[in-house]
Amino acid sequence: MTGIVDVAARAGVSVATVSRALRGLPGVSATTRRLVQDIAAELGYVASPSAAGLPTGRTGAVAVVSPVARGWYFTAVLEGAQEVLTQHGYDVLRYDLSEVETNRRKVFDTQLLRKRADGLLIMSLPLDADEVAALHAMHRPVMVVGPIVPGISSVRVDDVEVGRQATRHLVELGHRVIAFAGGDPDDHLGFPVSPDRRLGYVEVLRSVGVEADPRLSVPAKFTVEAGIAAYGELSALDVVPTAVFAVSDEVAMGIIYAARQHGVRVPEDLSVIGVDDHDLSWLFGLSTVAQDVREEGRLAAAALVDRLRSGIDSEPSVMTVPTKLIARTSTAPLRT
Amino acid sequence: MTGIVDVAARAGVSVATVSRALRGLPGVSATTRRLVQDIAAELGYVASPSAAGLPTGRTGAVAVVSPVARGWYFTAVLEGAQEVLTQHGYDVLRYDLSEVETNRRKVFDTQLLRKRADGLLIMSLPLDADEVAALHAMHRPVMVVGPIVPGISSVRVDDVEVGRQATRHLVELGHRVIAFAGGDPDDHLGFPVSPDRRLGYVEVLRSVGVEADPRLSVPAKFTVEAGIAAYGELSALDVVPTAVFAVSDEVAMGIIYAARQHGVRVPEDLSVIGVDDHDLSWLFGLSTVAQDVREEGRLAAAALVDRLRSGIDSEPSVMTVPTKLIARTSTAPLRT
Repeated sequence: MTGIVDVAARAGVSVATVSRALRGLPGVSATTRRLVQDIAAELGYVASPSAAGLPTGRTGAVAVVSPVARGWYFTAVLEGAQEVLTQHGYDVLRYDLSEVETNRRKVFDTQLLRKRADGLLIMSLPLDADEVAALHAMHRPVMVVGPIVPGISSVRVDDVEVGRQATRHLVELGHRVIAFAGGDPDDHLGFPVSPDRRLGYVEVLRSVGVEADPRLSVPAKFTVEAGIAAYGELSALDVVPTAVFAVSDEVAMGIIYAARQHGVRVPEDLSVIGVDDHDLSWLFGLSTVAQDVREEGRLAAAALVDRLRSGIDSEPSVMTVPTKLIARTSTAPLRT
Repeated sequence: MTGIVDVAARAGVSVATVSRALRGLPGVSATTRRLVQDIAAELGYVASPSAAGLPTGRTGAVAVVSPVARGWYFTAVLEGAQEVLTQHGYDVLRYDLSEVETNRRKVFDTQLLRKRADGLLIMSLPLDADEVAALHAMHRPVMVVGPIVPGISSVRVDDVEVGRQATRHLVELGHRVIAFAGGDPDDHLGFPVSPDRRLGYVEVLRSVGVEADPRLSVPAKFTVEAGIAAYGELSALDVVPTAVFAVSDEVAMGIIYAARQHGVRVPEDLSVIGVDDHDLSWLFGLSTVAQDVREEGRLAAAALVDRLRSGIDSEPSVMTVPTKLIARTSTAPLRT
């Protein structure tokens, strides 16, 4: 069955635009609307008029699960997903996974989930084997936004490529002593985002004849506070980096803040690049590897809606959303 | 019936702490836990063991409604509310009100709402008379976080006092030519947040013998971009303010950004103060009138849970959460 994702791909527009165009909502040019309508007609795609058309026994709700961790990324994924799910008449059930074990078990309780939601959208989250098994046992469509989970469809970015893009930018500016701030030493589930970004960093350094110095890799979870702590670790080393690749923009913001507190100028003394293009990154002049996080949420929700409407549990697929370098004023050529 | 809010008030701790203490969750000291247990026992308050104890015919879900507008404030209210609702075993249904009229009507459809949620938590949002009537017709507990809605319980801050606190800070620093950036000229529903904050500003100026110059009040919705536009309007005036009171931290961030683009130094040439204490405000050194937005979400959710559990639809009440000035480096004494 043709889904909204197919129409969007063929028309070369976002899923949100297809949805708006077919529903007669504002914010779409007449030309685009006609293009989308033509392609939808050609492919035989009809937008669901409302949740009233749902097969009986369905709840009309989709559960969106994220870690309890605050952070811009999860908010933005949710915004994108909510936009598409609402447009298609689905209620959105929000579950935050606190660190509390019992709470987490309750969310992944197969019986409960089946009763409450027709489908599940899971945000970037380390899952253990039991949780993955529970998701399969649900026999309901599941989408993950983030790292690949075996047997489950996902929308993700290529985190190794993210690491390459960030590091390549710094290398092209002449930097060779480049630190990496990212990773969680307490992670026992092997969450791959930070390690993959670091792989890209190691690879690009190697391509210019530099072996990554392990001392220059310091841990940082995805928060501003972690960036401040990471700067503290870096400033205590006897090797002085001229640039830092931070695993997220929030980490980069913390590093810039801490550097300035220490009288280190960004970018004159230290170049800093992050990942995400957080809504406020431009205010900091932050160079970053941008991902369209809201569009990732929209794509995942649209794919989920397609599977809910078709009733066909297609083969697990992986959609990779491209990332791109945005160079602002937090990175500069190496001073000699 | 005694509610969790009463226990929290008596113990002098947050609602979240009471909830954690009574559930045996971590993050509470032994002393606090014992204190809370004693007070709960004394007042006859028992924490609901799970949603399984809900009266039949209930959905076990609470609907949280917010404008579609992105912004830190709504995210933070939701985080606080979600924390308490999850702890009490309620599912959280999220509704965003897009600008699309039909969508908005659907959310406020009394029949739909009654079927889907036991109660409703509405975030700071202009409501028209029909919508208020629909909420009353629901005959289910409703809480508003934000401005007072006739006949509906709310958790709010005193926005006139917010305006006083911000302006008093600037006046005490010697400023007299103070601009106000806030308000939406297109608002036909009389949303009082900006006008109330401006009232406090006018009042404090008057107390030092200054009549607020209407030219120095420029519109700004609650976004960074609106702050940039507001700065543009101010810089075109023939009167030059030495300080700006921005209706939110995001507006203040935009003003600081735009001022610096124009070569105007903050705070040397221009003092800027905002409202909220946004998670990233300290990174900008932003002076602000802080409100504990997550606690407002927790309080509203806890009050809603109390009413759901008691089944008693008590008289509408208004809880006012105090705000406080945080002076950082974006405000400074008037230079003579």
